[in-house]
Amino acid sequence: MNTEPRSYSSPLRQQQMEDTRQRIVEAALTLISEQPQEAFSHEEIARRAGIALRTVYRHFPSRPELLDAVWKTSDSQLELSHYPDTEADMLAAVEPVYARMDAHAPLMRGLLRSNAGQEMRRRDNERRRAAMERALAPATAHLDAAGKRGVLGIFQSIFSGRAWETMRDRAHLQEGEPARATEWAMRTLLAQLYRDQKVSAREGQRHAKPAAKRAAKNKA
Amino acid sequence: MNTEPRSYSSPLRQQQMEDTRQRIVEAALTLISEQPQEAFSHEEIARRAGIALRTVYRHFPSRPELLDAVWKTSDSQLELSHYPDTEADMLAAVEPVYARMDAHAPLMRGLLRSNAGQEMRRRDNERRRAAMERALAPATAHLDAAGKRGVLGIFQSIFSGRAWETMRDRAHLQEGEPARATEWAMRTLLAQLYRDQKVSAREGQRHAKPAAKRAAKNKA
Repeated sequence: MNTEPRSYSSPLRQQQMEDTRQRIVEAALTLISEQPQEAFSHEEIARRAGIALRTVYRHFPSRPELLDAVWKTSDSQLELSHYPDTEADMLAAVEPVYARMDAHAPLMRGLLRSNAGQEMRRRDNERRRAAMERALAPATAHLDAAGKRGVLGIFQSIFSGRAWETMRDRAHLQEGEPARATEWAMRTLLAQLYRDQKVSAREGQRHAKPAAKRAAKNKA
Repeated sequence: MNTEPRSYSSPLRQQQMEDTRQRIVEAALTLISEQPQEAFSHEEIARRAGIALRTVYRHFPSRPELLDAVWKTSDSQLELSHYPDTEADMLAAVEPVYARMDAHAPLMRGLLRSNAGQEMRRRDNERRRAAMERALAPATAHLDAAGKRGVLGIFQSIFSGRAWETMRDRAHLQEGEPARATEWAMRTLLAQLYRDQKVSAREGQRHAKPAAKRAAKNKA
């Protein structure tokens, strides 16, 4: 008989703790994938994981802590929170991001349809918004604040999990097609922005000329 | 004392039935607007309307019948199911559609976030998709089926309740700005499609010439 006192820092105990934690997170992910409309609660997750409710609470004392862990694991599969913040990286990200969504379609749909998923995505929104704003800065340099916001809104609308779902499930695009369509739209809109920029730069020079003449006149 | 037997077809009785029905639908709309994450059930709606559960079931024997009535009333406020099916009508619809969403923002957000709202919108999707396909037909005439689907997917992504919500709540656009941004994006993408169409028509003629020459040669 083993008479050694149980140590919470023993490697075996640590491993057991880690396994239990992982089982809880997996149960939460399964719940989101298979029944996104189900309430996402400690109770429901304990039931699915076959783990005592008090154990679930010991690992995740609150809903935000549980959501963080689920988000982190979803993220390791979907890389949802790796936000490109240059124009080139943003364009290059479309294909792999949508390919990951296709590869994990049930989880992705679950995240989009469940309250828990919506909550997680809202919490990460500001990082995503800020990264896209940086990516769009060169193309929107000639616009005022409202114009910049408008372009940002369009790009957030066409390059997102929601856009992927709209394209796959509502417009019936096939695997791979959302990426091609999105890249085409992004490149077309960016090209227009750069054309507008050239026009407004030329107009700026034209408007600047009389001012320069006036300045020269005043000097003379 | 009134000894006349109660008639179910009396105008008063009809009016009472109509009032009760309306109270149920209003309770359902309030539930969606105020607590989109709440379960949408006959029980919850009966509780909110202060009406007996059996009465709710008498008016709406099943969930689809209840959802139809709620959708119809939402629609009279938001006109969500009036889908333009020409390019001009689609462009002209952006401003009034987004203005209605702004005017009924809590209901619109509720419809987007609640399971009931998502269910209603999914059921109406095919009509919406088909109308947009017709609206885009002239601009996408030169594309193959996959190309047409891609353009449709982009347009469904940028002109939708979800896009409105992304622009307002994620990209922080102000009232009126989503319409301007969406119109700009639509016009830019349509202009590119028509430019591509001219190019492919010219290329078609160039490819046709050698064939015509060959035909002339064979004749001679």
